Amino acid sequence: MTPTLLTNSRNGRTNHLPFGEKRDGPLFNQHILSVKQFAHHDLEQIFAVADEMRMMVERVGSFDLLKGKVLAVLFYEPSTRTSSSFIAAIQRLGGSVIPINEVKYSSVAKGESLPDTIRTLEAYADVIVLRHPETGAAELAAKYARKPIINAGDGVGEHPTQALLDLFTILKERGKIDGATVTMLGDLKYGRTVHSLARLLSLYNVKLNYVAPDLLKMPRELVQELHARYIAQSETNSLEEVLGETDVLYVTRVQKERFANLDEYEAVKNSYVITPEILARAKSDMVLMHPLPRVGEISEAVDSDPRAAYFRQVEYGMYVRMALLAMVLGKA
Amino acid sequence: MTPTLLTNSRNGRTNHLPFGEKRDGPLFNQHILSVKQFAHHDLEQIFAVADEMRMMVERVGSFDLLKGKVLAVLFYEPSTRTSSSFIAAIQRLGGSVIPINEVKYSSVAKGESLPDTIRTLEAYADVIVLRHPETGAAELAAKYARKPIINAGDGVGEHPTQALLDLFTILKERGKIDGATVTMLGDLKYGRTVHSLARLLSLYNVKLNYVAPDLLKMPRELVQELHARYIAQSETNSLEEVLGETDVLYVTRVQKERFANLDEYEAVKNSYVITPEILARAKSDMVLMHPLPRVGEISEAVDSDPRAAYFRQVEYGMYVRMALLAMVLGKA
Amino acid sequence: MTPTLLTNSRNGRTNHLPFGEKRDGPLFNQHILSVKQFAHHDLEQIFAVADEMRMMVERVGSFDLLKGKVLAVLFYEPSTRTSSSFIAAIQRLGGSVIPINEVKYSSVAKGESLPDTIRTLEAYADVIVLRHPETGAAELAAKYARKPIINAGDGVGEHPTQALLDLFTILKERGKIDGATVTMLGDLKYGRTVHSLARLLSLYNVKLNYVAPDLLKMPRELVQELHARYIAQSETNSLEEVLGETDVLYVTRVQKERFANLDEYEAVKNSYVITPEILARAKSDMVLMHPLPRVGEISEAVDSDPRAAYFRQVEYGMYVRMALLAMVLGKA
Repeated sequence: MTPTLLTNSRNGRTNHLPFGEKRDGPLFNQHILSVKQFAHHDLEQIFAVADEMRMMVERVGSFDLLKGKVLAVLFYEPSTRTSSSFIAAIQRLGGSVIPINEVKYSSVAKGESLPDTIRTLEAYADVIVLRHPETGAAELAAKYARKPIINAGDGVGEHPTQALLDLFTILKERGKIDGATVTMLGDLKYGRTVHSLARLLSLYNVKLNYVAPDLLKMPRELVQELHARYIAQSETNSLEEVLGETDVLYVTRVQKERFANLDEYEAVKNSYVITPEILARAKSDMVLMHPLPRVGEISEAVDSDPRAAYFRQVEYGMYVRMALLAMVLGKA
Repeated sequence: MTPTLLTNSRNGRTNHLPFGEKRDGPLFNQHILSVKQFAHHDLEQIFAVADEMRMMVERVGSFDLLKGKVLAVLFYEPSTRTSSSFIAAIQRLGGSVIPINEVKYSSVAKGESLPDTIRTLEAYADVIVLRHPETGAAELAAKYARKPIINAGDGVGEHPTQALLDLFTILKERGKIDGATVTMLGDLKYGRTVHSLARLLSLYNVKLNYVAPDLLKMPRELVQELHARYIAQSETNSLEEVLGETDVLYVTRVQKERFANLDEYEAVKNSYVITPEILARAKSDMVLMHPLPRVGEISEAVDSDPRAAYFRQVEYGMYVRMALLAMVLGKA
Repeated sequence: MTPTLLTNSRNGRTNHLPFGEKRDGPLFNQHILSVKQFAHHDLEQIFAVADEMRMMVERVGSFDLLKGKVLAVLFYEPSTRTSSSFIAAIQRLGGSVIPINEVKYSSVAKGESLPDTIRTLEAYADVIVLRHPETGAAELAAKYARKPIINAGDGVGEHPTQALLDLFTILKERGKIDGATVTMLGDLKYGRTVHSLARLLSLYNVKLNYVAPDLLKMPRELVQELHARYIAQSETNSLEEVLGETDVLYVTRVQKERFANLDEYEAVKNSYVITPEILARAKSDMVLMHPLPRVGEISEAVDSDPRAAYFRQVEYGMYVRMALLAMVLGKA
């Protein structure tokens, strides 16, 4: 009954849970909290399992690997895409779901602390997926949990499963990650998605281009962090400058609300919309990605282009989440 | 990756999806969008499967015909009855559910288009049930979907599964549909339910009576459409006039809000409430139906009358939805 | 089709449903409405089944005892803890769930009566768990239902499954219930939890201490009811007076809102917070319980004390609900 404190594993990046059970495969009984916990070989293992999941789903749709396992989906803020992805993932593995979406009306509304909510849910569920508006919430939850916690986004903090699915998409669409020139476009300042993805990419041999308005540039600390890892990075306001060499174009949304001056927004917004004309000047095998939802950043006329990978990206996400669920439950 | 455009099948009524898979039974891989897509023999097939479903549920409760299949229930407006019916239907067939009820808080709130939401969900699910406040939404969704879409109501447009369950109820309660005199009562102007049911009934040899206040009469276009199909129709303000010959009495709600003048409402409202006294003058084997929820249109004193079929109607609905799910997934 | 009226069974406490099926084990086809319906031997049977459930969950996690059974979870007011517990319970038994949490947006919002909603849901589900803000709602529902209704709280009325899990917790933590001195602390006036638990405890050989501010004392009627059953009861404002003899300390929340005069609240509030200092003066094997959520009544510093049983209590709750579901469905 004592709160289970996390201990760092030998590589200093992963957390494991002292369940007293013996380890059963990589990530078994571990929390998924941050992209920072993964080494290169962790990613290889996750993607190998995700690829098995893909093949099984294509062949049989669903199978009973996690039959009888219960996933609690605890979302303190709504995200249909992410919660649906996890729900489909556990169900295609034969498990079931306790969905908790209306936290505002629940025990929490009565003032219950996150640790108490977690210790309640782990009495019912085998694994908990947590979405929370506050940075650090997932780590706090993990500090008290005896069951694995998967961070599905905590404020401006981390969203590790999104970064993993982004990387898996690059791997599946290109065949390999090494050697890729990845251009990130749009709001690179506030987007936790691109931050996490850049960190994961730094475990590979890649080149990164950042294309953003001055106001929304990649944070200096992150650029320096990656520079220290010998990642080649370049920065520009103009997609045209780097489009020709781009293997992967990762588009994010530029929100009007980020601009104090509306004229400034009007001046830049069209530079960041992907149209068939722009694609005509891109590599014929470029991979065009977007974390979705999109609201105009990619023209619908682009959807039929074979390079448009964003809906396949959604599907890859389900396979990655299936892999993570199977691995933390020791069934991969 | 190109959006899959629907093509009309040979009879010009049904839509099929160019999946590249061979057809596996009627309705396989088809969308269920409108009652207009069904020919008489389609209905016979649906009702035959629904009847098998009924027998299986009565015998074993649930069975694994759709084990491993995932249904996304995407409701842009709430409808406990309809969503619960589909959820029970897929679960009694061994499948599972991604429930999406809070669309207002989700990606859609962030401005995502219906086609994008559909293309996201079909990465997770095998079939999508859609409820939407706007007419034409289901058709728009189907235009982009590679997985079957079932329309669970789109604004004042269609609600085909309701009409199918209404017809199945008549079939099961009477033994046959041909030869029935069906009287529709209440708000015949705005009720999509009665419009869809009337269209389906026109595939049979029936007589239709419309009983409504002047303000809420059956639309002229629909009356003419059915007239062109040689359906005998009569219209009156008074239930008494046609009660004696009625085999099926289909009651709908007369909403106060439809009347500009409250006196007008007060004048008519009592003519449209079914009481034991009214039933005493009806055929002894009449079938009394209501799409529910009711709010006073049928007195609770009538519930114990064997002719009151509205709660059995709810149950028939589950069988029809089980049949549709099995058929579009090629497992009927 | 006539509404099924409940008849009293021979002991005048339990309700059974005239399904025409033969009885299959205790509680088969019965509603769970009130703790008053249980005799001592009923509790023994429930706890024996709950203990089997616990052993099975510890051994295999889930199993298919209720495979194919569908539970409708109909909550007219939110309670994450209780609904999650029932959802986990049916899923760990292989069954599935129709969750209905947003009643305010649903048919009910359109004015549907509870009996109509129940008669609709029982067309889909095998058993219905009902939470409702109005006292008597569960009994009303049961009056119309042909499927078993489980009361998950109706206003200030009953919450029988909470009382059963509380009692099961005492049994499992102490090994037996007889001989226990149980001290109830906090708001004993408005807490339906302590009322129901006290009634159940009166079926055993126990001593009850009530520790509450004057304003929130145990209701006189209940004290007299238990007195008539020869239960030893004592009442005080001071926990210290009875702490030393206490085997089970059941803590509830003292809500500021109950006090007209805030000074009065300030004067008492600290007497009712459990800290390590208080525990230091308690029996070394005392069982510390709380129905949760807690908001300060028990210091978090107490969580690591082996006597803190409140998170285990949550888990016992799942086993009790698994037992009840299996029993009313005739599968225990």
